[in-house]
Amino acid sequence: MAEGQALVKEIVPQSEDFSAWYVSVIRKADLMDYSPVRGCIVFKPDGYELWEACQAGLDRRFKETGHRNAYFPTLIPESFFQREKEHVEGFAPELPLVTEVGSEKLEERLALRPTSETIIGHMYAKWIQSYRDLPVLINQWANVFRWEKRTLPFLRTTEFLWQEGHTAHATEEEAREETMRMLEIYRDFVEADLAIPVVKGQKTPSERFAGAVDTYSIEAMMKDGKAVQAGTSHYLGTKFAEGFGIQFLDRDNQLKYVHTTSWGASTRLIGCIIMVHGDDRGLALPPRVAPTQVILIPIGPAKVREEVVGRSRELLQALRAAGLRARMDDRDEFSPGWKFSEYEMRGVPLRLELGPRDLAQGVVVAVRRDTGEKQALPQDGLVERVQTLLDEIQASMFQKALAFREAHSHRAATLADLGRVLEEKGGFVLAGWCGDDACERRVKEETKATARNIPFDPPERMERCLVCGREARHTVWFARAY
Amino acid sequence: MAEGQALVKEIVPQSEDFSAWYVSVIRKADLMDYSPVRGCIVFKPDGYELWEACQAGLDRRFKETGHRNAYFPTLIPESFFQREKEHVEGFAPELPLVTEVGSEKLEERLALRPTSETIIGHMYAKWIQSYRDLPVLINQWANVFRWEKRTLPFLRTTEFLWQEGHTAHATEEEAREETMRMLEIYRDFVEADLAIPVVKGQKTPSERFAGAVDTYSIEAMMKDGKAVQAGTSHYLGTKFAEGFGIQFLDRDNQLKYVHTTSWGASTRLIGCIIMVHGDDRGLALPPRVAPTQVILIPIGPAKVREEVVGRSRELLQALRAAGLRARMDDRDEFSPGWKFSEYEMRGVPLRLELGPRDLAQGVVVAVRRDTGEKQALPQDGLVERVQTLLDEIQASMFQKALAFREAHSHRAATLADLGRVLEEKGGFVLAGWCGDDACERRVKEETKATARNIPFDPPERMERCLVCGREARHTVWFARAY
Ligand SMILES: [Zn+2]
Ligand SMILES: [Zn+2]
Repeated sequence: MAEGQALVKEIVPQSEDFSAWYVSVIRKADLMDYSPVRGCIVFKPDGYELWEACQAGLDRRFKETGHRNAYFPTLIPESFFQREKEHVEGFAPELPLVTEVGSEKLEERLALRPTSETIIGHMYAKWIQSYRDLPVLINQWANVFRWEKRTLPFLRTTEFLWQEGHTAHATEEEAREETMRMLEIYRDFVEADLAIPVVKGQKTPSERFAGAVDTYSIEAMMKDGKAVQAGTSHYLGTKFAEGFGIQFLDRDNQLKYVHTTSWGASTRLIGCIIMVHGDDRGLALPPRVAPTQVILIPIGPAKVREEVVGRSRELLQALRAAGLRARMDDRDEFSPGWKFSEYEMRGVPLRLELGPRDLAQGVVVAVRRDTGEKQALPQDGLVERVQTLLDEIQASMFQKALAFREAHSHRAATLADLGRVLEEKGGFVLAGWCGDDACERRVKEETKATARNIPFDPPERMERCLVCGREARHTVWFARAY
Repeated sequence: MAEGQALVKEIVPQSEDFSAWYVSVIRKADLMDYSPVRGCIVFKPDGYELWEACQAGLDRRFKETGHRNAYFPTLIPESFFQREKEHVEGFAPELPLVTEVGSEKLEERLALRPTSETIIGHMYAKWIQSYRDLPVLINQWANVFRWEKRTLPFLRTTEFLWQEGHTAHATEEEAREETMRMLEIYRDFVEADLAIPVVKGQKTPSERFAGAVDTYSIEAMMKDGKAVQAGTSHYLGTKFAEGFGIQFLDRDNQLKYVHTTSWGASTRLIGCIIMVHGDDRGLALPPRVAPTQVILIPIGPAKVREEVVGRSRELLQALRAAGLRARMDDRDEFSPGWKFSEYEMRGVPLRLELGPRDLAQGVVVAVRRDTGEKQALPQDGLVERVQTLLDEIQASMFQKALAFREAHSHRAATLADLGRVLEEKGGFVLAGWCGDDACERRVKEETKATARNIPFDPPERMERCLVCGREARHTVWFARAY
């Protein structure tokens, strides 16, 4: 679709202006377009397929751990948001409201869901009566709406796509186990499938989900050193159970409130893939989620063309028969050089070139997107070699992102330290924190960095609060964030 | 979830009150629940899994024919609906409108999409410039909103889930081919996977999609003889292209409007599955889309229990390893008899019972949900026998539904005939029609039946209009419909 036109535009170098690089890449790779409604984007096929890959990877893991999908209404009576005090404060200002249908006014205004704890809490109160009805383990794939002031494609949009899990349990212990299980599923998916290393930890109280007792997150570092919260898991205690009356008769014949959790990951993940792996040549997609894993390009003058294309087609069929997502580009109207840049820009992990000389030698030339490395692979046993190579690329992309994060992780003993490190080097900064809201607020005001999370497994325990110098209760990762 | 409670309620016999039967079955089988917002239902896991099966079957077929998924915003500027005259007349009265966010009024009211021709038309106008950009073959899985006066779970709800394909082509011929290709995909999916026979045909002008040049449908007969439109495919001509300025420079250097199509199928399909195959014992699910295809029930007194359950588990693993969706119910607290009715009610296509005597004889007892037929199957080679049996059940459910439709298909020469047939026998009625709107309107007013479609392949050509007696231009299937 108007590809020729789009390709004329050059990609802005990352080092020059990271934001401009990001926007130029997502436009050039045809992942999205802006819509006429402020902050709402169109997910074009190349962008949406990344979301389909995320859906497949997460959905499989949810189902393996006993969760089932369901679907709840988008429209939620406005009054429902009043039932949990902190929840309404967090979400009311961004709620789009349906007030009319056709030309008739509605009796009660209906909010477009920003998240579904309220409507799901209302339903669970009807469904749960006894300990025998527990646990309830449900996930929903849905669109949600938050009228954000500043938007950025994939990372913060007025409407976005996500999954939200909502579970109910008989005991706090079981609900807390579920909260951790789902956080671990997000870590596993993001690290294994997206090749993005993350830090697991707990959010500080001021960064908690509105209405949660405890919020946990995985945080990923983008190539400009900024953080993205890539998934969250909340232990909600009995707050929503009390707000919506979700009670059950326990084995001991006592009526009790259930303990609930919720957890979510969204189309922000697409933004993470781009900002973690992309470079000045464009996207670089991890093989496990790349819609096209292998692009085959036959090369050569017209007189050998038929033979080269014929052999390429055979190899293509072998690759596809093995379940690889391979495609061939044998179009005449574009030069091989043009195609090389095109598929590099689109982030295809592996390019296979086949020319007359390769044909004679029984090889294909394989070029890795991540390293640019070239190697001749024998056509015999090609499928196995390609599979191994894709695994290597996946592992090496993770290692590269991990090394980048390590290289951009620092420590700060004081607020001045933190400010200096962020200005000079950026990245994640480890510091002690006394646990006081005021100190956390100072950090934000003076450095624009926020507490990303309190990691479960920090590289070092910091002893003093970076602001007030008192004894640190927590060791925290601070960073500027999307 | 409160299963015990739900099971106390009995299923109303179909013959007594079909609507009451329907509602009692979907509640008892735990497919849905009512939400606090009028006409919006909750798709509970057992209901939603039927939708997931429909999604898988359709999505595969769409991708095999070159379509790709994308996602467009839910919110559409109200003014967009004005761009196509018939479209706005059709949809304006049912449009939910977002007028405020938080406590601020929006400058332009935003409609929740009832269908996405308008917003997609707007985007296609940006994306399409040249014949090289064509065809555009995009599908979207989404929630849509229509404020229906009367609602019925799955069949007509305020919010529902569907897919909507939207394609753009250089020529009318190509767009019309696409329209027919997608209609055929719906027929194939509904007949092969859902085991529901359908009639393919063209809608009369008064039943066309608002804004279409031609609308085609597949129509299915429910067990009360009423029709459900199970999928539609529209040739939209250049109407939306003109409304949104979707033009391209053709090979001949002329600026032309594209020809567009759209096609959709929705969660109504769940309603069709229930109403076509269900009976007084509950649901009956076609094996291809049944979330559980085989339920294994070990039987016997406590002393042989361990051995029976152990062997059942081995068989279960073998079935699952072969890709069958099999489950075992070895709960102690429910009797075998209770379990038999339970899984019959939930529509599981095949039940396997294993007791001590079966164990000794090396067999399992297989019971078909569709016919109730019992047979002993050797444990050796069980997987293959079960696979064959499921194929037989699938084919036989289709044949049974087809025979039912044939038995309830009639002919009428006059309006009086039609009224009498509908009152006495119900079902689909074939009749001639002169093509006049007035005659079609008379039929609706006097019999509450509507023209379902003009079949491509009617069993007989009818010569006279059933209302005015003039020469028939079309042979039409009339029926009362959901
Ligand atoms: Zn402090
Ligand atoms: Zn007539």
